[in-house]
This record gives sequence, C-alpha cells and structure tokens, in this order.
Amino acid sequence: MASIKHVAITGGTHGNELTGVHLLKHWRQKPQEVARSSFVTEMHLANPKANAQNRRYIDQDLNRQFKLADLNNHELCGYEQNRAKSLNALLGPKEDPRVDFVIDLHTTTANMGMSLIFNTDDPLVVGMAFYVQQKMPHATLFFDPADRLEDNFLTSLGRHNGFLIEVGPIPQGLLRADVYNETKTAVLHCLDYLEAYNLGTVPDLPERREGYRFIRKVQLPENELGEITAMLHPALQDQDYQPIAPGDPFFMTLDGETLPYDGDGVVYGAFINEAAYYDAHVGLSLMEKIQIERKPG
Amino acid sequence: MASIKHVAITGGTHGNELTGVHLLKHWRQKPQEVARSSFVTEMHLANPKANAQNRRYIDQDLNRQFKLADLNNHELCGYEQNRAKSLNALLGPKEDPRVDFVIDLHTTTANMGMSLIFNTDDPLVVGMAFYVQQKMPHATLFFDPADRLEDNFLTSLGRHNGFLIEVGPIPQGLLRADVYNETKTAVLHCLDYLEAYNLGTVPDLPERREGYRFIRKVQLPENELGEITAMLHPALQDQDYQPIAPGDPFFMTLDGETLPYDGDGVVYGAFINEAAYYDAHVGLSLMEKIQIERKPG
Repeated sequence: MASIKHVAITGGTHGNELTGVHLLKHWRQKPQEVARSSFVTEMHLANPKANAQNRRYIDQDLNRQFKLADLNNHELCGYEQNRAKSLNALLGPKEDPRVDFVIDLHTTTANMGMSLIFNTDDPLVVGMAFYVQQKMPHATLFFDPADRLEDNFLTSLGRHNGFLIEVGPIPQGLLRADVYNETKTAVLHCLDYLEAYNLGTVPDLPERREGYRFIRKVQLPENELGEITAMLHPALQDQDYQPIAPGDPFFMTLDGETLPYDGDGVVYGAFINEAAYYDAHVGLSLMEKIQIERKPG
Repeated sequence: MASIKHVAITGGTHGNELTGVHLLKHWRQKPQEVARSSFVTEMHLANPKANAQNRRYIDQDLNRQFKLADLNNHELCGYEQNRAKSLNALLGPKEDPRVDFVIDLHTTTANMGMSLIFNTDDPLVVGMAFYVQQKMPHATLFFDPADRLEDNFLTSLGRHNGFLIEVGPIPQGLLRADVYNETKTAVLHCLDYLEAYNLGTVPDLPERREGYRFIRKVQLPENELGEITAMLHPALQDQDYQPIAPGDPFFMTLDGETLPYDGDGVVYGAFINEAAYYDAHVGLSLMEKIQIERKPG
C-alpha cells in the first residue's frame, strides 16, 4: 500500500464546537507539534462562517454533505453544500483525493468521553483506532461502516476514509481545558501512528477490540403538534455506552411519568441528549456491542 | 404591605434555555399545579422568536433590556429592545406594575446547581429565597442588589423586584430531566411561599443566611487580534461557589501554561465557563461571600 504523504486536520466542521477551532489556532502558532518526518500535515477550519456566528451550521449540517453524488450535484447550493464542494476541490477530489487522510475534530454534549469514530474496515484506519486506544485505554471505538464514496462525512474525502475524534461532554460554544487536552493528545497519537506506518515501525496491535456499531436514532415522544412531550429518563442521562434492556427506564414525560424501553434485546446508548440533534427531536443513538477485527494490512 | 394578586412565571427569556419553555408548556396543560387560592398565576414565553431559532437572542440579550430609561427610549429598537417594551406593556408598566411578582426561569452551562438570584433586599423577596432554601438546602443564594427602576432584568418588571431561578450545569438547546424537575420544584415552593405570605402563614425563617454577592466579570486572556489565548484552568472548571485565592490556578493557555489568579484576596467563582458569555470572552464572575439579612417585613 502506498505510504501516507498528506494528512489534513480539520476543525470547526460544526461551527460551535470550539475545541478543534482553537487547536488549529494553537498549531498554526506551533506547527512543529503536528509536523512529522514522512508526511505533510495541513490544517483547515472547515466552516469559518458558522464558526464566526457560533452556530453548528448556516444552512445544512456540513458533515452530511460529502457523498460523491451530492458533491457532484450543483443543484445543492446551500452554504454548506457549496462549502463541501470547495473542500472537495481543496482536499479531494473524492474519486482520487490529493489528501491521504483526514482527522476531523468534534465535540458532543453527550457523556461519550473520548470516542474514536471510523467508518471503514480499512486496516490502516482500524489500526489507528487500536493504536490510539492502546495509548488512551479509556477511548471507545465507534464503528459505522459505509462505502467511502457513499459516506457523507468530511473524513471520507481522504484516500483512506479517515478518522473523527469526538469528545464530550461539553456544551456547545465554549472551551474546556480537559476536553481540549484530550483531543490534542489523541491527534498527536494519530500522527505518530501514521509516521510509524510510513516508517514501518508500528508496534504490535491486537487483532480485535470491542467497539460499538450504530443501529439507529431514536426520537423523543411528540404530541400531535409535533412538540416534545418527554425527556430522556434521568436514569439514562450520561449513561453513554451502557446497556439498555427491554423495560429499562427510557423517557420521562413532562408530567413525570416513566416510559420504558420497548425494544427486543439489549442495546447501548450513544449521543445521549446531544444538543445538536434536538432540532430533529432525536434523543439518542442505539448501538450494538461488537468485536472489531483488524484485517492484515 | 399590599398582598400579592398577580404572579407571572416567565421562561425562554433566553431562547435556547429550554427548561423554562417546556415547564410553561407543561403548566399550560396542568394549570392546577401553579394555581393558588389567593393570587392569579400567569405564564409568558418571553422570547418566542429566539426560542423558535434555538438562539439566546436575535439582536440583544433580552434580559438586559428592562432599565426604565431603556424601556422609555424608542430609539432602542432591536428585536429584544422592542420585545422588552411589549413585555413592559403586558406586565408593567415598570413605574406602576400590574404584576406583583415575576419568577423568571433560566439555565446555565456552569456547575451552579440550584441558584436563586435576587436583586433586592425587599423582605418579601429575601424571605422567598430563605423559604426555598429551607425546602431545598442545596440551593445557593446569589444576591446582586440594584435599584428596581435601574435593574435591567425581566424580573424587575414586577412590583416586588422578582426572582430568577438559575439551574445548571446543562448545555444550551436541550432538556435534562434532573434540571427540569429541580426547576419545577423550586417554582412550586415560590408559589407556596407567596400563598403563605398572603394568608399570613409563612413559617419561621432565619434572620440571615450565607450567600454570594457579584463583584465583577473576568475576561479570558486575548492576543492582539482579540482571539482567546487561554481557557479556564481545569482546577477551576465546575468549581462554582468555591474559594479562589491569590496564586491559585486560574487560566490555562492554549499552549498548556498555567496562569495564576492575581487578585488581592479570596473570592468565589460563579458562571464559570458559561457558554452565553463566550461571545464577549467572559470566563467567569467573581463573587464575595456575604451574610444576607432579612429585614422585618
């Protein structure tokens, strides 16, 4: 496999997630921290306009605009739909990208700790997740496989479908030093891994690790006017990656009534009470626990 | 002193603080919860347009627009400046208000727990704070005295300068059942207190209680471009109402350097890392610990 020559670190893909934005500012002052001998590291503020307005997006969620078909559809011309085309010109083009790897920095209001989100079984990418987790054992692997050309994430612009670092809990629109430092540490491990990959010095990594695969999103209950009538149950709040069994407390109505989880088997929650999903009244994602295999590279 | 005849509960004064918004929806369905025998309870969504856009405000912070001089200045015609005049017509007029008491519902991203904010030494109001704290001993008293006609808070529209219930930590733009339930409980105690006041059945209350008085806001360090160069120190994060002594860790630069608190004496933090103050690069409020006296009513 060809070596890695160009790595992009992106932040502010969601304009009110300030951690990545300020890490980019920091690294522009201290580029030696992200420089490695065997590749070029470049940095891009993905959605400057949304960041300037301290909003997630202006017209559309930028991190849903990178399907190949959408990038090539010039009738999609909202602010972020255009910005995605611009980033595709800068980093891609998606079919044959200039950039080998994109590391995209995100935060969440959910109690997801250090979550490493990757959408491919590409051994280079799975190896990065295992490597970072070896260095940061509290990190959780969040696997949501998609064909790279069909994938709508910014990270899919890289030749290897890249890597999204998602840290929480943190409200939108502010910095927390703990979240900032965690994110910084994870990025530096990612770069060290790619350097070791190029130099043939990647340490022994496990063949498989436990992780979580996305099943579906769950909406909050609504009335006939489309208004929210319940919240996530307090017993579920902040319990990301913990099991949810049939009959467990799931929602609490505005009246205080408990509604149980009515699914068939045990699932696991993620993005529990993510503020960014409230406009669609999405309360959480359901995940299954899986073993993630690292195929020989 | 005249009895209380009209009480207003207001929510959504900051449009992305959803707890109050949904409590109002709940109480519109269950008005008996907030009905009392001796006064009329009315409910108002203070900033519907900002709430619909899930923003704190459209043009200006609504909860800074209620100085008498500003209400009478028709050159101040931003969205919230007009809305303040409309609320003044609905609840006031400020010089001789129709409504006796305003209870305004807020949330904060800071770890301030249940904070009862009141801006007057009016014995009725101080008594309400002491009463609610008797019922909810974890509540903190936050005292920021101002002349009612000079006060810029919505709560100052009431004949008695009213009461702001501030609960956190919670990100903007979502509901947490714990914060919702705490806020609901506090409001019901407030109403019970006003009922007892009218009926002459207020229980014995202490003569003084410990509380915190606002001193000043502190800005995050900036560079010559006006960009943030430091965050609140991790040792300070979430430590609202805890002492800060000269030399204590205060900021952490984006480079990881610790900057100490360089003030003269011990102070206490509040609104530590409040997201809403980030646009002005305000990191926290400094408070002094005081004894709040309840004058004979």
